[in-house]
Amino acid sequence: MSEEKLSTEEQIKQLTARVEELEENAPNDSLCLGVMDGDYDKTMAAFIIALGATAYDMEVDMFFTFWGLSALRDPKKKAKKDFLGKMFGSMLPGSCNKLPLSKMQMMGMGPPMIKSVMKMHNAKSLEELMKEAGEFGVRIHVCTMAMDVMGMKKEEMIDYPHIDYVGVGAFVGMFQEAKQCWFM
Amino acid sequence: MSEEKLSTEEQIKQLTARVEELEENAPNDSLCLGVMDGDYDKTMAAFIIALGATAYDMEVDMFFTFWGLSALRDPKKKAKKDFLGKMFGSMLPGSCNKLPLSKMQMMGMGPPMIKSVMKMHNAKSLEELMKEAGEFGVRIHVCTMAMDVMGMKKEEMIDYPHIDYVGVGAFVGMFQEAKQCWFM
Amino acid sequence: MSEEKLSTEEQIKQLTARVEELEENAPNDSLCLGVMDGDYDKTMAAFIIALGATAYDMEVDMFFTFWGLSALRDPKKKAKKDFLGKMFGSMLPGSCNKLPLSKMQMMGMGPPMIKSVMKMHNAKSLEELMKEAGEFGVRIHVCTMAMDVMGMKKEEMIDYPHIDYVGVGAFVGMFQEAKQCWFM
Repeated sequence: MSEEKLSTEEQIKQLTARVEELEENAPNDSLCLGVMDGDYDKTMAAFIIALGATAYDMEVDMFFTFWGLSALRDPKKKAKKDFLGKMFGSMLPGSCNKLPLSKMQMMGMGPPMIKSVMKMHNAKSLEELMKEAGEFGVRIHVCTMAMDVMGMKKEEMIDYPHIDYVGVGAFVGMFQEAKQCWFM
Repeated sequence: MSEEKLSTEEQIKQLTARVEELEENAPNDSLCLGVMDGDYDKTMAAFIIALGATAYDMEVDMFFTFWGLSALRDPKKKAKKDFLGKMFGSMLPGSCNKLPLSKMQMMGMGPPMIKSVMKMHNAKSLEELMKEAGEFGVRIHVCTMAMDVMGMKKEEMIDYPHIDYVGVGAFVGMFQEAKQCWFM
Repeated sequence: MSEEKLSTEEQIKQLTARVEELEENAPNDSLCLGVMDGDYDKTMAAFIIALGATAYDMEVDMFFTFWGLSALRDPKKKAKKDFLGKMFGSMLPGSCNKLPLSKMQMMGMGPPMIKSVMKMHNAKSLEELMKEAGEFGVRIHVCTMAMDVMGMKKEEMIDYPHIDYVGVGAFVGMFQEAKQCWFM
């Protein structure tokens, strides 16, 4: 390196450029969570962590894809669908309250048991957590490719203040700039 | 920008401040692993990676929540519990040796088969991996919210040299500063 | 701090050293994906994200371990195995096309249903995604420890342009330098 030959001015200029590049590539203080499984417990864990992160002033982006979409369905809404879309729609859980557990499903007995125990401990339900996430600015991004494959429509999705519909590329853009990203 | 007008001294001062901020925000050389599923294979994979990371001088924080807690139960210990706590306690695996497989459980035949194959290949059991993790300074953080919901008590947990009991906020603080974080 | 006492030259030298350290520790623009579950949907999601990341010029390293290995078996290839290896081999899916779904497996009816719906939407099959990943330089790293335990051999693995066989340490080295890492 011939840095000694450079003037002070030139050295500072070069150093500034390097610092600028480091600053540009530094991650945002944000968390990116992929939700794919569509289980009550996993989706709930994702929202609990999302809310915890907002409490630490992190920005949170949640990406819902595949079975994860069921958590976003509003049972009071109807959407026009073709035959396959109707078939999928009837096979998948109709709302966040209908999601199965990843363990101890016990032919349907597990979820109400867990929910009643959680109520006893004043833990919030998934529905309440999602409402709170909306209030705290957690963004929900819905994978349009998964919607297409499963025949889901925007019209049947929950009213959520920060929801949008994106492709995989948008998700890549998010986690590329995030501090952390993982799937639950 | 009117940087040209600044004195050399002032330029260096500003640059130093920017470098300091970059240094402060740079992640620790640490790995944060969430363990939630409570499967023998997934929990084992988490410990294998944790130990691998310590071999590369990374600090490792493991966060156990939901079904993941079962891996931390000591079958020789008993804790006073209310009715629901007892019920959960009896339904959940009583120790790391009792965890099911995430695949090929085959009505209970899978785990002993896998374990005997692993022994043949001199691969360590989960119990041995956990002991080793303790020796290498891997920290285990137990989610108190999950303990409450499942009625688990500190008194029934394994003796582990680096174990503590934390809320979700502490976990956020960990992954916010970690190089990587994910759930297994 | 006695920085005022330092000469301009010395201050620049120290600052340069700090910038160099920041640059050295800055992550590569790479994504590290662990594939462990061996489900058709999860493995497909991993490749969709991997391909999305290459479109944003990220380098992608995929680490296949445990049940994830089945996706890499070539049904046309045979390998010499001992009794246990043969037994495992016959119990595990023989190729990426034979992987089960993580949900809605429905005694085998789920996968062909999902595949035909995906074909209708011109979505690529897992096999096509894997071929494309090879063309876009996605690297596949196969966990040798999992191969040993499951009795899998290199000779039965698919022809893939960027495949190698590694230990856990190599994986740690990858995610330690990656921008993001997670398991699907």
